[in-house]
Amino acid sequence: MTKAEKSAKTATKAAAASLHASKGGKAAAKPDAPAADDTPIIALDLPMAKLTPAMSAYFKKCQDKLGFIPNVLVAYAFDMTKLEAFVAMYNDLMLGESGLSKLEREMIAVAVSSQNRCYYCLTAHGAAVRQYSGNPLLGEQIAMNYRAARLAKRQRAMLDFAVKLTSQPANIEDGDREKLRRAGFSERDIWDIAAIAGFFNMSNRIAAATDMRPNMVYHGQAR
Amino acid sequence: MTKAEKSAKTATKAAAASLHASKGGKAAAKPDAPAADDTPIIALDLPMAKLTPAMSAYFKKCQDKLGFIPNVLVAYAFDMTKLEAFVAMYNDLMLGESGLSKLEREMIAVAVSSQNRCYYCLTAHGAAVRQYSGNPLLGEQIAMNYRAARLAKRQRAMLDFAVKLTSQPANIEDGDREKLRRAGFSERDIWDIAAIAGFFNMSNRIAAATDMRPNMVYHGQAR
Amino acid sequence: MTKAEKSAKTATKAAAASLHASKGGKAAAKPDAPAADDTPIIALDLPMAKLTPAMSAYFKKCQDKLGFIPNVLVAYAFDMTKLEAFVAMYNDLMLGESGLSKLEREMIAVAVSSQNRCYYCLTAHGAAVRQYSGNPLLGEQIAMNYRAARLAKRQRAMLDFAVKLTSQPANIEDGDREKLRRAGFSERDIWDIAAIAGFFNMSNRIAAATDMRPNMVYHGQAR
Amino acid sequence: MTKAEKSAKTATKAAAASLHASKGGKAAAKPDAPAADDTPIIALDLPMAKLTPAMSAYFKKCQDKLGFIPNVLVAYAFDMTKLEAFVAMYNDLMLGESGLSKLEREMIAVAVSSQNRCYYCLTAHGAAVRQYSGNPLLGEQIAMNYRAARLAKRQRAMLDFAVKLTSQPANIEDGDREKLRRAGFSERDIWDIAAIAGFFNMSNRIAAATDMRPNMVYHGQAR
Amino acid sequence: MTKAEKSAKTATKAAAASLHASKGGKAAAKPDAPAADDTPIIALDLPMAKLTPAMSAYFKKCQDKLGFIPNVLVAYAFDMTKLEAFVAMYNDLMLGESGLSKLEREMIAVAVSSQNRCYYCLTAHGAAVRQYSGNPLLGEQIAMNYRAARLAKRQRAMLDFAVKLTSQPANIEDGDREKLRRAGFSERDIWDIAAIAGFFNMSNRIAAATDMRPNMVYHGQAR
Amino acid sequence: MTKAEKSAKTATKAAAASLHASKGGKAAAKPDAPAADDTPIIALDLPMAKLTPAMSAYFKKCQDKLGFIPNVLVAYAFDMTKLEAFVAMYNDLMLGESGLSKLEREMIAVAVSSQNRCYYCLTAHGAAVRQYSGNPLLGEQIAMNYRAARLAKRQRAMLDFAVKLTSQPANIEDGDREKLRRAGFSERDIWDIAAIAGFFNMSNRIAAATDMRPNMVYHGQAR
Repeated sequence: MTKAEKSAKTATKAAAASLHASKGGKAAAKPDAPAADDTPIIALDLPMAKLTPAMSAYFKKCQDKLGFIPNVLVAYAFDMTKLEAFVAMYNDLMLGESGLSKLEREMIAVAVSSQNRCYYCLTAHGAAVRQYSGNPLLGEQIAMNYRAARLAKRQRAMLDFAVKLTSQPANIEDGDREKLRRAGFSERDIWDIAAIAGFFNMSNRIAAATDMRPNMVYHGQAR
Repeated sequence: MTKAEKSAKTATKAAAASLHASKGGKAAAKPDAPAADDTPIIALDLPMAKLTPAMSAYFKKCQDKLGFIPNVLVAYAFDMTKLEAFVAMYNDLMLGESGLSKLEREMIAVAVSSQNRCYYCLTAHGAAVRQYSGNPLLGEQIAMNYRAARLAKRQRAMLDFAVKLTSQPANIEDGDREKLRRAGFSERDIWDIAAIAGFFNMSNRIAAATDMRPNMVYHGQAR
Repeated sequence: MTKAEKSAKTATKAAAASLHASKGGKAAAKPDAPAADDTPIIALDLPMAKLTPAMSAYFKKCQDKLGFIPNVLVAYAFDMTKLEAFVAMYNDLMLGESGLSKLEREMIAVAVSSQNRCYYCLTAHGAAVRQYSGNPLLGEQIAMNYRAARLAKRQRAMLDFAVKLTSQPANIEDGDREKLRRAGFSERDIWDIAAIAGFFNMSNRIAAATDMRPNMVYHGQAR
Repeated sequence: MTKAEKSAKTATKAAAASLHASKGGKAAAKPDAPAADDTPIIALDLPMAKLTPAMSAYFKKCQDKLGFIPNVLVAYAFDMTKLEAFVAMYNDLMLGESGLSKLEREMIAVAVSSQNRCYYCLTAHGAAVRQYSGNPLLGEQIAMNYRAARLAKRQRAMLDFAVKLTSQPANIEDGDREKLRRAGFSERDIWDIAAIAGFFNMSNRIAAATDMRPNMVYHGQAR
Repeated sequence: MTKAEKSAKTATKAAAASLHASKGGKAAAKPDAPAADDTPIIALDLPMAKLTPAMSAYFKKCQDKLGFIPNVLVAYAFDMTKLEAFVAMYNDLMLGESGLSKLEREMIAVAVSSQNRCYYCLTAHGAAVRQYSGNPLLGEQIAMNYRAARLAKRQRAMLDFAVKLTSQPANIEDGDREKLRRAGFSERDIWDIAAIAGFFNMSNRIAAATDMRPNMVYHGQAR
Repeated sequence: MTKAEKSAKTATKAAAASLHASKGGKAAAKPDAPAADDTPIIALDLPMAKLTPAMSAYFKKCQDKLGFIPNVLVAYAFDMTKLEAFVAMYNDLMLGESGLSKLEREMIAVAVSSQNRCYYCLTAHGAAVRQYSGNPLLGEQIAMNYRAARLAKRQRAMLDFAVKLTSQPANIEDGDREKLRRAGFSERDIWDIAAIAGFFNMSNRIAAATDMRPNMVYHGQAR
């Protein structure tokens, strides 16, 4: 069996094991801790493909920077074309140039995922909101009900649009775009809000369809 | 003004003009015909960027093969990174290798877009279903209510999953995946159904958020 | 077996056959064309009754004027009392005197049927909107999402009322009627909007309950 | 001012006055009783037309048999064509020959009107269920939540179909018709269930659109 | 068998029997009257506990004042702690000091119960609205669709808030509270509206979960 | 100003201040930490009343055991009758004798609060699920989407019932109760599930209506 034939399931178990080891003393201190929830990563049995050099470098970069490979990447790794397309779109939207701050983009991710009740994305991007904002409450509030957060008008308008676009896409009209303009967003910003909200409406559904499990490490980040 | 500074709006008007010309006598015969509906393509004022060589070649290929550039591509062309990421993902999902036929993939696109009442995608992908199937009724039925179509069990199971994933993503569970397996779909096929349904949940929302208008030419195709 | 004992199913097959014949060369040119979708017309086995003289004349008039008998009439023809009541109400609402143009009435029919996703009515009345308006796009847009159509304020107010009345009848209040008055509609016009929206909420459900199939000829009309 | 120019509003006031008189002592005993709720009958100002001989006879028959003219008839009486079409369809569906008992037809009327929260129809047809059944509870239960009523399997299947047809018409499929057949309903019975459910989906909306008020006398009937 | 072991079911049958007797002649006159609907009171088999002295006194007071024990109390009587907690909260909210009149509190109970389609609460509290208001119509209208009632602005604002809080609790914001303040409600009044609406959202669900049946006597009260 | 006249707002600020102090070094280490989110506790200005001896003892017990007074208690403390009724009902349901474990009761609280998107209850009872279960993931999963949790059949049946009772109370029928019995629940257990689900449908709405803010300390508990 070649490396390329290892399934995502197996890959995940290994990842979970190494994560477990890295948590060291804490796990030892809690002998009755729940078994890792992130194995297998998805409910489909899809053999992991051999990583292309670009993806191999990207996974290494994740490991170095985050300390782990986000499970969504492992899930997509059964097919390099799909993985590369996903990574290109994700990185442009969430990390590329934009009039929206990275925190604002993560806020959209979480508000959309809350509407769709997506366990994977709420966990991973809730952690990101906590980290970028340095405000553990903010991640919780947006995950639970963004209307409970004390948001600036700009961010409130942004999330109102993203949530309406999620729950009632057919009802978006000029007035909705005007509200964003009045809140100070540029034409390009409006595109970015729409594109990020759209992207998580896609990702939430892929996660739901495959029962994707987030890396356990997210749960404790930036609390 | 450089070519790169031309806005999508302007580009679209030109495209519409040439389309109009190409319809020739018909337009002349109907002097009170409605003005082209696809100008401007979107309700955001986003200057078209200079196409990269790859995208320039791709647009040329569209023009040669289809006779027009799909408006969604013109809409994304304000930013080459976004356009390339969109094209890569779209082409893999809809035209790449898959256990789903191209017709089946378009059927998912239309059934999802019907749930979300997306004018752009229903028009463009409704035409594709009519073309791939050679059955003008099928495109209409899936656009209107896929339950009205006389589908094979396989396709019915596929669309039931895609539509549930669209309208109630939080409720998808093992039983839903099992129904697809029993209908003969492989693990990889299930991913593809999910990924295409997810993709159109994204695209429907970007189209809704920007009031994207389909090329007029779709309306008459394959009737 | 008397003529009166022929079932609607049989009658429809005959009708379909003659329609098929009338399409002549086209059908021949496409040997793998889908079987006619409109046989049987409904999923209930209801023997067609002997037409009363009035209804016989009416069917003849349809045949002469349209070239076919709309399937909804064939469906109702198992009972002359029901057929005559339906025809009387339909003709008054859709063709009788009114402050609403015939096109406006068909627009209401399509917008309501889109909310209810009624295959029969979207097909038959979508064709009517295309014909009356001379605008193939308009029929498509109202069938897909009336908010995507570039409507005059009057028509937009009319469809907003019809769609709210369809989806949230319990929430209609004085303010909704006032919006129609401000858009220029008279008291009588408001009744007519309500009555037509109501009528299609009835017809959509009878079509759904019986799986009524539209005459195939509608699909190609006025494209 | 001719008789034909009298508005429905005026007609209703007169009707209410005579009803008031006929309640005699009771009204006198409760001097602070609420003003009659049924004036005006509708929120549109539509002059009552001169009754045709047929409708004049019909109104007289109502007065003789019921002791009052149902307000829905007064509301329609601004236009004899509309009134006659409504009366013809109503009388066929609710009083004509059918495999459904008159009580069953009224049960459908009330269950549908409960879904749509129609004040007029719940009042008028709730009274009818109480009268036909001799069971005051039954009318209340179906108006409030038909699932709370202790129904025979046949009636339960009938109302399940009518209520699904009301709230989710696009989802009705062969399985739903099969349930009715298994509950003992004929093909013709299924049509009748659908047609009555459809009719009240129309009437509920006309009542909602016009704020139609039921005759006060219904409230106390058959308690 | 001790008294404490008697089940609620048995207790109810006895209650129903005595009620039946008390209706005397009427029941006799209608030999085919429906069997009492309120036996058993709930669909769970929960033995009635021995009443504490306080609850025994309270039941006696109910019997003396109302002529019967409301079935909800009998249902809770399987556990004295639960019964006492329910009675304490109910009596404070519905009968204690408040800026809301007792009628207004009952109006909230009915409007909330209508949203949730709760047979028990609509019956019991609909009777209370009829009694407190001396207006039989008002109880009917709020049970069917509170928007059909001709309410003073104050009461309309109160019910709008209670109904939104029932159907969309996550969407309540400062603006909703402001509307109540502008309608003249104090801070304390707003709490009371919220607490009563909340209480019936609880009670409606306990009634639904247990199929709780109202005492038959409510149906005829204050008509 | 007497102690009894201090408003809940003031009381909360003091509480927040003392909590802040108690977090000591951590707060100092993060000088840009967000301001406490739990001041004021609610959006209504309701002066705190003088605690009765019983409630004074109860608050002291909370302080001793938990280290803080849950904000919901401070919110209710404007009126001792209301506070005592709430405390009695809460303590019986969540801490009294029951066939459901305390963890199971908290799971119901969180699943119901997730349906209603209640920030207060998700925060406070999410912490309780994490604590009782010793499984930080479980609290997160039930708060986000209980279907994502790997639950035993018993708990899954329990939450399915609680969630259906929350979102569709009118549709609960015998079959739903039967599912609980088949999962091993007694009649009394079913009452408890219903009562707890009902209670949080009440509390979620009181929290929403008053914009109730949870004590900040919950956020970090048992992570």
